[in-house]
Amino acid sequence: MRHDHLISAKQLSRGDIETVLDRAAEIAADPGTVAGRHADTLLGLLFFEPSTRTKMSFDAAMNRLGGDTVDMGSVDSSSVKKGESLADTVRVIEGYTDAIVLRHPSEGSAKLASEFVDVPIVNAGDGAGQHPTQTLLDMYTIRENAGLDDLTIGIMGDLKYGRTVHSLAHALTNFDVSQHFISPESLRLPRGVRYDLHEAGALVREHTGIDDVLDTLDVLYVTRIQRERFPDENEYRQVAGEYRIDADLLKTAKDELTVMHPLPRVDEIAPDVDETAHATYFEQAHNGIPVRMALLDEML
Amino acid sequence: MRHDHLISAKQLSRGDIETVLDRAAEIAADPGTVAGRHADTLLGLLFFEPSTRTKMSFDAAMNRLGGDTVDMGSVDSSSVKKGESLADTVRVIEGYTDAIVLRHPSEGSAKLASEFVDVPIVNAGDGAGQHPTQTLLDMYTIRENAGLDDLTIGIMGDLKYGRTVHSLAHALTNFDVSQHFISPESLRLPRGVRYDLHEAGALVREHTGIDDVLDTLDVLYVTRIQRERFPDENEYRQVAGEYRIDADLLKTAKDELTVMHPLPRVDEIAPDVDETAHATYFEQAHNGIPVRMALLDEML
Amino acid sequence: MRHDHLISAKQLSRGDIETVLDRAAEIAADPGTVAGRHADTLLGLLFFEPSTRTKMSFDAAMNRLGGDTVDMGSVDSSSVKKGESLADTVRVIEGYTDAIVLRHPSEGSAKLASEFVDVPIVNAGDGAGQHPTQTLLDMYTIRENAGLDDLTIGIMGDLKYGRTVHSLAHALTNFDVSQHFISPESLRLPRGVRYDLHEAGALVREHTGIDDVLDTLDVLYVTRIQRERFPDENEYRQVAGEYRIDADLLKTAKDELTVMHPLPRVDEIAPDVDETAHATYFEQAHNGIPVRMALLDEML
Repeated sequence: MRHDHLISAKQLSRGDIETVLDRAAEIAADPGTVAGRHADTLLGLLFFEPSTRTKMSFDAAMNRLGGDTVDMGSVDSSSVKKGESLADTVRVIEGYTDAIVLRHPSEGSAKLASEFVDVPIVNAGDGAGQHPTQTLLDMYTIRENAGLDDLTIGIMGDLKYGRTVHSLAHALTNFDVSQHFISPESLRLPRGVRYDLHEAGALVREHTGIDDVLDTLDVLYVTRIQRERFPDENEYRQVAGEYRIDADLLKTAKDELTVMHPLPRVDEIAPDVDETAHATYFEQAHNGIPVRMALLDEML
Repeated sequence: MRHDHLISAKQLSRGDIETVLDRAAEIAADPGTVAGRHADTLLGLLFFEPSTRTKMSFDAAMNRLGGDTVDMGSVDSSSVKKGESLADTVRVIEGYTDAIVLRHPSEGSAKLASEFVDVPIVNAGDGAGQHPTQTLLDMYTIRENAGLDDLTIGIMGDLKYGRTVHSLAHALTNFDVSQHFISPESLRLPRGVRYDLHEAGALVREHTGIDDVLDTLDVLYVTRIQRERFPDENEYRQVAGEYRIDADLLKTAKDELTVMHPLPRVDEIAPDVDETAHATYFEQAHNGIPVRMALLDEML
Repeated sequence: MRHDHLISAKQLSRGDIETVLDRAAEIAADPGTVAGRHADTLLGLLFFEPSTRTKMSFDAAMNRLGGDTVDMGSVDSSSVKKGESLADTVRVIEGYTDAIVLRHPSEGSAKLASEFVDVPIVNAGDGAGQHPTQTLLDMYTIRENAGLDDLTIGIMGDLKYGRTVHSLAHALTNFDVSQHFISPESLRLPRGVRYDLHEAGALVREHTGIDDVLDTLDVLYVTRIQRERFPDENEYRQVAGEYRIDADLLKTAKDELTVMHPLPRVDEIAPDVDETAHATYFEQAHNGIPVRMALLDEML
């Protein structure tokens, strides 16, 4: 892989993805191979929106590679409050660090930032846009648990606003995967994403309920349905209740079904699923470490 | 000491306490003995409540051991705002770090967290519950300054809500210590704590004023009386005024009296005490470093 | 240079300044000369006010020297909310770290803090007071781009409240520099600063517009005019509009004019200036790294 910046999952070819996943697998098998490899590297963490998982796992990944991080902290404790533009902020920070991980509420912000600086920018989420390292750790988790060929995946929940889903669906078109999208009518995949997937030759089907596909799935990828997308609480509760997984429901699934979730979850997956062999969402989160180590190691 | 988690001072035997204090004394005498010993260790800092001392001293202690920390940051900048449960949060973070230091407003939260993860959890304060590493640094400070046997200690201030006091009082029952509790009637030790201390065979006496015991004390441990415990400002001011120490008052104390305070202080100890030989509260805070280094070194 | 604390640019002699700038130049030329030199050093970051540049560059500088930092975090996540005095806070932190970088909203706070502790304190901004490391990186940038002798500099914008300007103007009196101050009447240099400069033998002239001096300048140092200084929005807009630089205006300047700004900028410098050879403000920000590395290396 040779990219200066990682802005979108769309820029990753099948070969790029396999390179990162292979490297991540090597690192996961023997973290010692990379310890101290980047002892002099400083990674800038610029998170203009809250984050736990992404930020902490980039921080941990950089440390596991022997390097260190410099954190802007929350927007409230930074100069951003004084009205500085994103372009100015990144042009300053590129003089402090060797690479920048950026999360920002505006779609397109990572691309814009990358046009102003020479150090590598990694997009860690740009509004409703992209979150490519989440996609890479999702792909890694799928490959480790179910393989990436001859795969049937269901992606359920908020398919309209979820940047995670859009990136993942696109990346999966590089492999031999049947994709089933399960959501309420109001939260269907956006037309543009459907079109993109179609163009990429993907096998895509949409459903309003999980019952007719559950027993065919190798992977079920659940996402959170956000309260704030609904005009009233009752409507939210009804929809959220219909797109909820529990251990009982999963009795009709394949034994080897892998259940994933980008986390945080609220009510979409009942706690009793945690005790089943299907539950893979914590492992998925943990895979953020070897995958981000592999990515940083490739980019730096 | 062999504990997977450190949740409560109650789980520490006399032997456990002495092991940590002895190791802390070795480290304080020669920090070089442990420098770099934990070079590959990452400590997760999960503080769901504000902290200066505890968080910074764990951060510094881990760094002094050669390792590094990964900080969740404030709750406002994390996924907790999205409604994630504590159990989910710690199950994610255990994949990023080798141990977790947890502060949380709910009593029992550290215990709960420890039931979900395999990496060691250190309780850094769970609401009105426990704060065992504060107790260890308090014990260390007492031992260094006054010894832990044949000791007479006064514990003064808010004895009702102070988790620091409850942990310390319990730990002291492992040693030959007379404990005097000095507080307004409304902030007396809770019945449950009194009962525990009695069961543990402690020598306990309660007072509403310091005058009748001050000259017998080897150690006086002062805590902050919080404004928010009182219905009106006047009542608070009156009580706070009565449980305030100054240099003049201490003229009637033993020359070797050690005055301690878990900090932050507001008005409980007048600044003129800082200049006396009694003042040990900054040394006490500083002891957080060797004690937490010793503890992490034992646990990791 | 031998100072225990760095509180004010006024304490720096010409020799002190040259020592730091020379060292910074060596470090900038070959960062390898100092890598790992301070591997066991912990620097405490105590920022009681928002900061991006200063905090991140101290963090990066300490890491580039091989050491590490311990960050208090924002005031909201610290014990300061509980009413602790600054004197108490720094007396605690000095037991955790080998030096302290302090930013605080009160003028004189760094001086006060330095009277309570033994570890070196670096003032990173005390209200309307001083910000000496900004001055050092400004001086470094001026020396690298225009030299510090036989220099004509214009300093424009808010000259009344800008601590950056006051420190810089004072430090420049150690060299052969003509200083032109350009501001609206209401934001002129305070009388006390003018007097100080006069006493130091400085060549100082004041202007209400840039037109009559622009073509004589080697360096133009622009500062932000803050909205909150004006009673109404219209007055602010008018003044801000008059003290704004763009590429067109700079056509009348010397080819070698160096344009600086402490950042963040809002509208004072139009984006089209970024593309000109005059623009030096990002380089200026980046110079914070070698200059702060040099300073820490001298002090520690």
